[in-house]
Amino acid sequence: MSTVRILGIDPGLRITGFGVIDKVGQKLAYVTSGCIKSSDKDSLPERIKTLLDGIGEVIALHNPQEAAVEIVFVNVNPQSTLLLGQARGAAISALVGANLPVSEYTALQIKQAVVGHGKAAKEQVQQMVMRLLQLPGTPSADAADALACAICHAHGGQGLGAIATRGYRVRNGRLV
Amino acid sequence: MSTVRILGIDPGLRITGFGVIDKVGQKLAYVTSGCIKSSDKDSLPERIKTLLDGIGEVIALHNPQEAAVEIVFVNVNPQSTLLLGQARGAAISALVGANLPVSEYTALQIKQAVVGHGKAAKEQVQQMVMRLLQLPGTPSADAADALACAICHAHGGQGLGAIATRGYRVRNGRLV
Repeated sequence: MSTVRILGIDPGLRITGFGVIDKVGQKLAYVTSGCIKSSDKDSLPERIKTLLDGIGEVIALHNPQEAAVEIVFVNVNPQSTLLLGQARGAAISALVGANLPVSEYTALQIKQAVVGHGKAAKEQVQQMVMRLLQLPGTPSADAADALACAICHAHGGQGLGAIATRGYRVRNGRLV
Repeated sequence: MSTVRILGIDPGLRITGFGVIDKVGQKLAYVTSGCIKSSDKDSLPERIKTLLDGIGEVIALHNPQEAAVEIVFVNVNPQSTLLLGQARGAAISALVGANLPVSEYTALQIKQAVVGHGKAAKEQVQQMVMRLLQLPGTPSADAADALACAICHAHGGQGLGAIATRGYRVRNGRLV
């Protein structure tokens, strides 16, 4: 059975979440997940270096074949938008620099893919990621978002259709 | 006499300007400059790859020791701010990925360093860059901004003081 290893990224300057999963046929298996943090005491170039090195390490250790990145939104605060944009540019740089094909998904697509509707709360995403990947505990919000992004990519950004084919049933955004 | 080779970058998603100069003692010498362009028909990851590869090529060819990047401003349009942020994040990634120390300067600092006041028009920056580096013609606006950023860094972000020590006199932002 063909296996595709997918790296999902939830970009942020302070915290970037990452999650790696394997898609084996129609099944998904958890590989790893976590966060890369940078200190606001460092200069922006230093923080970008931390982010690049962190993602580079995940790629070197786990050899993903494809990558998926959440599309970030403009913030109420334009300065925050600019910082977030720079973090996302750095994250994508780390991925394309490692010659990974990069797909992009909106938060709406990602929530639809794992919870079944676009207005899911962070906790619902964490819960569903835990169940879909059979994790022993709840991943942190940032790691869960990154794993959710990878799951969305594994389903071709197609919402819960692919989950249903695996024998789960979904009602009100919960597996039943 | 000690020589420091400086790479200046004026980041943008559509056009990123670059300029390389040598600081030999107190003198500046032009090495190269130009633009890296990406098409809005490409996906964002493809455009970021173009930018990374372009800056990577300049670094490989010219071996700068230090880098300087213009600090970009938030745009009226938040979506443009986000795109510009991502381009800048990618540009800084290319620099820190090549282990270059990166300094950042505002447009105000850069204009003060080459023209003598912060409200200089683009054409004044182009003219002053041409004169300071003894270029045979006017560089394009983006290349001129990148060269101006490198010049600003060569002067330690100190405005026209360093130019004055080289025997030039400045009046109303023009060399006399």
